[in-house]
Amino acid sequence: MGVDRGRARRARERVARVDLAVRMREDVPANANASCVGVGDEAAGKAKGCEGCPNQAACASGAAKKASEEGDVDALRVAERLREVKRKILVLSGKGGVGKSTFAAQLAFGLARDGRDVGLLDVDICGPSVPLMLGEVGSEVHKSNSGWSPVYVEENLAVMSIGFLLPNPDDAVIWRGPRKNGLIKQFLGDTEWGALDYLIVDAPPGTSDEHLSVVQYMKEAGVDGALIVTTPQEVAMADVRKELNFCKKTGIKVLGVVENMSGLRLALDAVSFVNESSGADETARVRELLATHAPDLAESLGIHAEVFAPSKGGAEAMCAQLGVPFLGRVPLDPTIARAAEQGKSVFDPELRVASVSAVDAVVRGVVVAAGDTA
Amino acid sequence: MGVDRGRARRARERVARVDLAVRMREDVPANANASCVGVGDEAAGKAKGCEGCPNQAACASGAAKKASEEGDVDALRVAERLREVKRKILVLSGKGGVGKSTFAAQLAFGLARDGRDVGLLDVDICGPSVPLMLGEVGSEVHKSNSGWSPVYVEENLAVMSIGFLLPNPDDAVIWRGPRKNGLIKQFLGDTEWGALDYLIVDAPPGTSDEHLSVVQYMKEAGVDGALIVTTPQEVAMADVRKELNFCKKTGIKVLGVVENMSGLRLALDAVSFVNESSGADETARVRELLATHAPDLAESLGIHAEVFAPSKGGAEAMCAQLGVPFLGRVPLDPTIARAAEQGKSVFDPELRVASVSAVDAVVRGVVVAAGDTA
Repeated sequence: MGVDRGRARRARERVARVDLAVRMREDVPANANASCVGVGDEAAGKAKGCEGCPNQAACASGAAKKASEEGDVDALRVAERLREVKRKILVLSGKGGVGKSTFAAQLAFGLARDGRDVGLLDVDICGPSVPLMLGEVGSEVHKSNSGWSPVYVEENLAVMSIGFLLPNPDDAVIWRGPRKNGLIKQFLGDTEWGALDYLIVDAPPGTSDEHLSVVQYMKEAGVDGALIVTTPQEVAMADVRKELNFCKKTGIKVLGVVENMSGLRLALDAVSFVNESSGADETARVRELLATHAPDLAESLGIHAEVFAPSKGGAEAMCAQLGVPFLGRVPLDPTIARAAEQGKSVFDPELRVASVSAVDAVVRGVVVAAGDTA
Repeated sequence: MGVDRGRARRARERVARVDLAVRMREDVPANANASCVGVGDEAAGKAKGCEGCPNQAACASGAAKKASEEGDVDALRVAERLREVKRKILVLSGKGGVGKSTFAAQLAFGLARDGRDVGLLDVDICGPSVPLMLGEVGSEVHKSNSGWSPVYVEENLAVMSIGFLLPNPDDAVIWRGPRKNGLIKQFLGDTEWGALDYLIVDAPPGTSDEHLSVVQYMKEAGVDGALIVTTPQEVAMADVRKELNFCKKTGIKVLGVVENMSGLRLALDAVSFVNESSGADETARVRELLATHAPDLAESLGIHAEVFAPSKGGAEAMCAQLGVPFLGRVPLDPTIARAAEQGKSVFDPELRVASVSAVDAVVRGVVVAAGDTA
């Protein structure tokens, strides 16, 4: 509860809590006065707090409001562009590093494997992982008369990401919100996906510009729902509850939550054994001991552990509490990490991904939740 | 390289690469025309592309430029506020979930343990983890005549986060950039830290509003450098190279890079052994076998594995290549995760954190890199 440091509590007033009202549009110009009422407000340009604001004249004349409302025109344009896309699914997580892009990529691979036409749109502008995870680093986006052509990984799997538009893959995209929003608008309005069974949108962590822009620009096209990815520990779940709150406030249906890195599974040959006191490597000795005294386990011994402890019951308990579907658990599996790192599908039998059935269960869960019974 | 889908390549033109020029100020209003030249440009309000823009009048009269330049006034105010803060350090990572907040928190705990006066500022507005990691969920921020009083975890460890300003800890902060920037300005300009040896700023993943605002508002106060946190696999390192690029472009010194989740270390009693063919739990049998045939290892056997494989040599190779200091590796250690989850210091001997010396080496590395030889 914090050390009081001896100050008289009576003299201190609590700082006012932050205003959490959701403003879909950018109705507070970046250069507005702190007391801005929003360009869409009746008092815009006329309120006391508007004095001296560079936007005062535009607000008073209604020009600022008109520009803001043009967002609606963009949403109509996106709807027209996505007319032949049957299902639009967001992949979200409040927290970074929980495997969001991994699941977006593997969901795309899994749906494409089943013969569906799939598009994967990466709206993580500052940290695009999709090109790497689809094995398409260095690919380029071309334009035709009818729009931007995405990169085709397979005949029926198309991808779009800012990663394809960088002069150098290590370049930082040091952009404030409006520029990120502008590119997302282009991705949604200009990409020529053609007919798709699924468009999957991989979002960055958080609940900010990218998320609001996707919801705003896809308002007319309609989002079918969101797959939420989390890990079991409270520090991730705290952020995921915020993301669920975001879905509620913006009217996005939650298709389900997947708990990733849910326990660790390793094959015996993936670990080494060390005497922590002496530092000596005891791997050969332990393996030999097992081979001699437990030969039945030689080929089949697996090592399980909790790495991120589900301190409050994990995602399943959270889902039950909040009334959203739980889609299952996928362990922290080095063979999944390796597939992602190599830009490959976990469904490729050659990779021998240990937890492939757990990932497949999530893909099937999304298909069912999306009402895709064909 | 992507499937060509049979379209004539010749007919296709590559989409122009994105413009990566860094604009420190929000000099493109959120409601500006797409062709905005920036409010600070000589042609602002007069260029052909300004026609119909709601900001045209304000730009032509210079009012917009003047408002933009007031950012400099904010930077002077922040410098005055941080006058008694000896060292200001950012904790950054391009990628989320690599342990950034964990390191920010443990760096703060470690410096405070050594008797230094430490402040920790969380500028992750949408996903604040610092209250949880410092064991201060539910604490409140108060204001006095001279500013906002941070929350004191110890006499010499003060913390500020939006987490203390939410009506409910699960509330989503669904804010676009300008509102996030406004709060960061308040955090930097209004928090009454008093005299500090270190102010540590924990940033969200990415290279966007929060990062630009911190650099802009701290321009006059001066940032001493950044601690960069990564994990070993390429999908994280790709984003971290972007963050190093951000530091270069904005003139932030890199104090060093730490490779977190660098291999996994588990104690024997933290794992279970399973026959993957039959599903049978073989833990008791394997432990007994070890106790009988290798009694010298009973107390000291550790299990090591790579979870996130350093496919391109990991952070150390990257640092050598890019000429930035490498501060060391910290394994993926469930006892560190548990300390973070409980809001405790890994330096608390009661927690018996296995990798405490690896974390301590990072704290000492930061102290040395920051020139703190006292």
